[in-house]
Amino acid sequence: MLVGISDSAFTESLNLAHKAAQFGADAVVITPPYYFSSGQPELLEYLKRIMVQMPLPLFIYNMPVHTKVMFAPETVRAAAEIPGIIGMKDSSANLAYFNQVQYLLKHRPDFTFMVGPEEITAEFVMMGGHGGVNGGANMFPKLYVDLYNAAVAHDMTKVIALRDKVLQISTTIYNVGKFGSSYLKGLKCALSVMGICNDFMAEPFHRFNEPERKIIQEALEKLDYKSLL
Amino acid sequence: MLVGISDSAFTESLNLAHKAAQFGADAVVITPPYYFSSGQPELLEYLKRIMVQMPLPLFIYNMPVHTKVMFAPETVRAAAEIPGIIGMKDSSANLAYFNQVQYLLKHRPDFTFMVGPEEITAEFVMMGGHGGVNGGANMFPKLYVDLYNAAVAHDMTKVIALRDKVLQISTTIYNVGKFGSSYLKGLKCALSVMGICNDFMAEPFHRFNEPERKIIQEALEKLDYKSLL
Repeated sequence: MLVGISDSAFTESLNLAHKAAQFGADAVVITPPYYFSSGQPELLEYLKRIMVQMPLPLFIYNMPVHTKVMFAPETVRAAAEIPGIIGMKDSSANLAYFNQVQYLLKHRPDFTFMVGPEEITAEFVMMGGHGGVNGGANMFPKLYVDLYNAAVAHDMTKVIALRDKVLQISTTIYNVGKFGSSYLKGLKCALSVMGICNDFMAEPFHRFNEPERKIIQEALEKLDYKSLL
Repeated sequence: MLVGISDSAFTESLNLAHKAAQFGADAVVITPPYYFSSGQPELLEYLKRIMVQMPLPLFIYNMPVHTKVMFAPETVRAAAEIPGIIGMKDSSANLAYFNQVQYLLKHRPDFTFMVGPEEITAEFVMMGGHGGVNGGANMFPKLYVDLYNAAVAHDMTKVIALRDKVLQISTTIYNVGKFGSSYLKGLKCALSVMGICNDFMAEPFHRFNEPERKIIQEALEKLDYKSLL
């Protein structure tokens, strides 16, 4: 169980980490502070300073779409030397970047690489990445585990077939409406249709209304979703 | 006294607003939530919902460099109808954008427009903007007030002379080193050199070290800064 503790304020991230520890999380995940952009030396020092008070192991989270800042490959290499930093989640979707980081960290097979966008989990794992943090696994854990296993086994036929399902999910569940948050809205709505959880969203976002909900419902049927459970 | 309450979390912005009210602020200033980008209808609804619980008048703060999202001109027009929203601070530095917003709000002379970047305060005020929130005024309030008055009086000779000083400050105080935060570091350092306040900065940023401090000191001397006080 990994808990996100990203915040623009140092102390708020630590507060979230302490809450996460209190409730039994295994590790926490942090992006760069995402209001005023920081430089690479600042990022590295930030990690060093925050780790002194961090109650749990930490993954650094590369999420440039939201944070505007990348952890440069050299920064990741240096961060991996900080006690308590055990891995990275990369949501840049930039496999060339990942290759670079991975190459720089060849000497650290214990450092864990996770990928964000589920659409590229297979490629990422086939290239030596360790796994994915896949939103869709909230709906269909088996599908994403099967995809992971096929990728580890380099079973391309199976990878291609399973990835097709993942791309169908991505295209028909995550892309309803013209919202920047269509991915989140679609995922929450699908989970609600499936009876897994309710579709409440934090401000400033709101659940889909009936028309979009109907589209999600149809998309789930076209996926023959019960066969995926 | 305007206090910033921008946060990615709705409740945290409200907490900050209540603190600001408790300590006697006149109004608060809010950007769009700046992690997951929101669309214009979401932004408008967000403002409507947060204003229900807002203890102080509010300025919306257009700051796309940090938030990635602009308040579209139509969103500003609609936001100006929400009780309690009394004005806007625009730090886009995009005067074409400002012109558009101002044109749409011709019918609302009570709605206050403030500008962020001090380098364009004069142009902004000459075009009917109401003033600037100028970082440099922490060092040299008289200079920025004189510039404002010259702009209001359309005294171009004076505007050009004073703006030259403002640009000298901008070039020599705000651009030391290759930091994304050079502006903040330089301003804090100059204030410290002048004995106005200490140069502590919030994480992940840090004060300038001695070599940069020396550069700032020299820049202040070249500005003949005591003549500006």
